Amino acid sequence: MQSVRAYVFDVFGTLVDWRGGVARDAAPFLARHGGDPSQAQAFADAWRDRYQPAMTEVREGRRLFTRLDVLHRENLAAILPEFGLDPEGLTAEELDTLTLAWHRLDPWPDVVPGLTRLRRGAIIAPLSNGNIRLMIDIAKRAGLPWDAILGAEAAQAYKPRPAAYLRTAEILMLPPEQVCLVAAHNDDLAAARACGLRTAFIPRPLEYGPGQETDLAPSADWDVVAESVEDLADRIGRPR
Amino acid sequence: MQSVRAYVFDVFGTLVDWRGGVARDAAPFLARHGGDPSQAQAFADAWRDRYQPAMTEVREGRRLFTRLDVLHRENLAAILPEFGLDPEGLTAEELDTLTLAWHRLDPWPDVVPGLTRLRRGAIIAPLSNGNIRLMIDIAKRAGLPWDAILGAEAAQAYKPRPAAYLRTAEILMLPPEQVCLVAAHNDDLAAARACGLRTAFIPRPLEYGPGQETDLAPSADWDVVAESVEDLADRIGRPR
Repeated sequence: MQSVRAYVFDVFGTLVDWRGGVARDAAPFLARHGGDPSQAQAFADAWRDRYQPAMTEVREGRRLFTRLDVLHRENLAAILPEFGLDPEGLTAEELDTLTLAWHRLDPWPDVVPGLTRLRRGAIIAPLSNGNIRLMIDIAKRAGLPWDAILGAEAAQAYKPRPAAYLRTAEILMLPPEQVCLVAAHNDDLAAARACGLRTAFIPRPLEYGPGQETDLAPSADWDVVAESVEDLADRIGRPR
Repeated sequence: MQSVRAYVFDVFGTLVDWRGGVARDAAPFLARHGGDPSQAQAFADAWRDRYQPAMTEVREGRRLFTRLDVLHRENLAAILPEFGLDPEGLTAEELDTLTLAWHRLDPWPDVVPGLTRLRRGAIIAPLSNGNIRLMIDIAKRAGLPWDAILGAEAAQAYKPRPAAYLRTAEILMLPPEQVCLVAAHNDDLAAARACGLRTAFIPRPLEYGPGQETDLAPSADWDVVAESVEDLADRIGRPR
């Protein structure tokens, strides 16, 4: 790990609480439009359930690269009937605004202090499937001290396609083994390792709420397993 | 200007002193290899003279998009004989290292405080022909507080091609009139204006040394003309 020159991060779940943030904005939206605000977390889950299938259309070449904000907006329209809302009764502006809930997500408490320490000795950047503007907005609001915004839009490929990882390393002008992906998701790390990147796992057992059953523990011998971004900084010897 | 949501910046000359920075690294290089270290500024100028022609190959479609570090490295090899250096007597590593002089440029003194103020109320990013890693390295060393690294590599087009400006606005998910280019070069601003961007001119009369004859004054009625990045922050009403 001493040769790692850049740490790149999964963001949704690994660094920010998408479920809590989306539910926070969904509750008043549901209340305003005759839905049940107590269903806000289920609403967030249903919205997120359509995340991977939407990207798969792009990954498998059936659709040109389309930024995540557009997929989120389409997926929002698709789930409305499941929550008793009539899409015809909602304005485009209202749906656009709720889609921006994904731009207003809070980081877990260890994230800003941990990134701040990591940044002193390496390049740090998101390697998220979120688009660049979405990542900028999260970072400005939360104070994430990125050196650059990389990820799916910069690579024009969604994780876990190899191009998402390899083009990120190429933009950084680093061999893959000098780039470490930090993620709370074993499948993301497996795909990064297959491309030659280093891997760091940080479990986020509450990402999907109290009943979460996946990604509670590392599924392979990742280069680092840490409890938080601060713990990662400790483990690689980055001073406080 | 009140509707501007993002300020994007030319970097070489507008924000950082490429001539002084390149000459600083060129002087010991020339001394080591039998050249004349007093020619270091002329060496920087000769290197920079090949900058636009190299990019023109890409702009006019005779060459696929190639990042600026590669063009800089080729241009360095090309100018060596002009300064009495034998390319055969130099290792690739030595030339690679000197090419990184472009990653170690100092900002003008108004830049960090000015960017820090602008960043509070808008997105700020470079819109440079420099590649992403080059911009990351300059920013980390100089403390430039970017929200993202945009520019030619992100857009896959060199300024002043319209795609460089328009794709930058598109990545930012902003209409061009909500993006303002800040530059010390009238031709850059003219190209941005033709794409619908707002324009701010900051003269840098010493960019090319004491004999500079170009870009000493605005050539058109740019939306803002400021003396420095701090003065720009003053003029658009950004608090200190």
